[in-house]
Amino acid sequence: MKVLFAAPARKWDLWSPALRDACPEMELCREGRPDSFDALIYAPGYPEDGSTLDFSAFTRARVVQSLWAGVERIVTNPTLTQPLCRMVDPGLTQGMVEYCTGWALRAHLGMDGYAQDGIWRNHLTPPLASQRRITVLGMGELGRAVAAALSGLGFRVTGWSQSGRPVQGIEVLAGPALPQALSRAEILICLLPDTAQTRNLLDAERLALLPPGATIINAGRGTLIDETALLKALDLGRPGHAVLDVFRSEPLAPDHPFWAHARVTVTPHVAADTRPASAAPVVAENLRRAMRGEPLLHLVDRIHGY
Amino acid sequence: MKVLFAAPARKWDLWSPALRDACPEMELCREGRPDSFDALIYAPGYPEDGSTLDFSAFTRARVVQSLWAGVERIVTNPTLTQPLCRMVDPGLTQGMVEYCTGWALRAHLGMDGYAQDGIWRNHLTPPLASQRRITVLGMGELGRAVAAALSGLGFRVTGWSQSGRPVQGIEVLAGPALPQALSRAEILICLLPDTAQTRNLLDAERLALLPPGATIINAGRGTLIDETALLKALDLGRPGHAVLDVFRSEPLAPDHPFWAHARVTVTPHVAADTRPASAAPVVAENLRRAMRGEPLLHLVDRIHGY
Repeated sequence: MKVLFAAPARKWDLWSPALRDACPEMELCREGRPDSFDALIYAPGYPEDGSTLDFSAFTRARVVQSLWAGVERIVTNPTLTQPLCRMVDPGLTQGMVEYCTGWALRAHLGMDGYAQDGIWRNHLTPPLASQRRITVLGMGELGRAVAAALSGLGFRVTGWSQSGRPVQGIEVLAGPALPQALSRAEILICLLPDTAQTRNLLDAERLALLPPGATIINAGRGTLIDETALLKALDLGRPGHAVLDVFRSEPLAPDHPFWAHARVTVTPHVAADTRPASAAPVVAENLRRAMRGEPLLHLVDRIHGY
Repeated sequence: MKVLFAAPARKWDLWSPALRDACPEMELCREGRPDSFDALIYAPGYPEDGSTLDFSAFTRARVVQSLWAGVERIVTNPTLTQPLCRMVDPGLTQGMVEYCTGWALRAHLGMDGYAQDGIWRNHLTPPLASQRRITVLGMGELGRAVAAALSGLGFRVTGWSQSGRPVQGIEVLAGPALPQALSRAEILICLLPDTAQTRNLLDAERLALLPPGATIINAGRGTLIDETALLKALDLGRPGHAVLDVFRSEPLAPDHPFWAHARVTVTPHVAADTRPASAAPVVAENLRRAMRGEPLLHLVDRIHGY
């Protein structure tokens, strides 16, 4: 099995040892004739000259395995007719759970209210998690894992997804109930993919449905939020704070107003990195399935885009 | 059943409705002849004139139920011969779990490394919880609950207690293995009571056993830590940070060096407040047991002091 590593060159040292470990029978290449490859391992930023990859030349390829969970930068490529698989890395899922839980607890506990100024402010007992409502937008692999962890800590968790498909132990609201999901969200965790349906889903009108002082945590995709509307809403204290890990343009420009806004915390797209050690076995399993003609894991639905 | 509310007057409005709700058969009083009371509900700061309470006058009292989990301010009173019970409030335990989990995740995720200065620092992927070692000092009610929650999030948790009594699902080290417990603690959570054995347990020598950059979270009792030694150790970066909720003297003096130290975060004894709604039923249950002559819950061992 000959596989093209169709990812930026700087990723080679990080990934190739883990991929070869997980799939020793694979010949992993950095270049070669397109029609010689049985599969592609892909990450955005390839080719590095900024051109768009022409997948139609890969006539033998049985699968394109993304190293990223989000596939919006490849799924719209009209030359891509091969099956495309998203990355579902157990390490990434766990990292996302830790990020969302940590920032939710920071908001819940009011950590930022304890200025280190010599004033002993112990008059307020924060509510317990069992008195705190959190809404998770997006009930995919990541949303379900985050909702389960928060629920396990005692939070009152509501999920929301377009389909409203049930999830064990979590109340899940469907598409039209979005206003209800937002209006109860003291903490709103956003884990939606970037699709035509989710772009600017959180606009001025929907942001205004959040309870005063709510905290938004966006660890999904930056396109979900109308940035101008969010800045205006934050100035009104509704939401009261936004923790943003993803942006329309990354890296976030140094002069972007998010950096300086007192009610915004920027983190640099670190919520969920794919970890080669845990992700490479997933890649290996999918490559083997493709070679044997078996059903692929985490196949992207090209209509819905995720 | 006639019960004296032996707590500061400002606590009356907070507690008396919940206590009467939970135990309607009780006559709850703020004063009266000592020999008329069947039981006392006690909190530090009583009597409010600063004198020491003479428990020997309460000849009928079958139990002294503390509203506080820590009983070091009453257990040494030589006039106290009645059975003394600590507060074990499920709300307090849950609050402690949330506090310790939240601050542990803040340290684990390196949240404070993301300065809001326009620089996109996404080169470092933090380790997962499964790669992070946390030691919990103290395996009582609170320590066990915190260890279980952290273990549930995937952290590698070690417990330590004097006895080393086993706890399901957690490796517990005993007294003499304290150096081992400290040397593996990337995050050290302190939930020990204040006793002769725990005072200054964390002195210069023991602090030096922590891994460089470790984070200490002390939510137990302030007397555990030699403050001067901690300040010196922090200046050397070992530990790298201390989150302190409890102090030798509270409120912490406005000019105490902890407030201004860049590697110290002070919170004003908020980690675990007793919540009347969840605590009053525990009080009621114990009062009833005392009246019926049944074994009491959370009876303090007067030799060990907790």
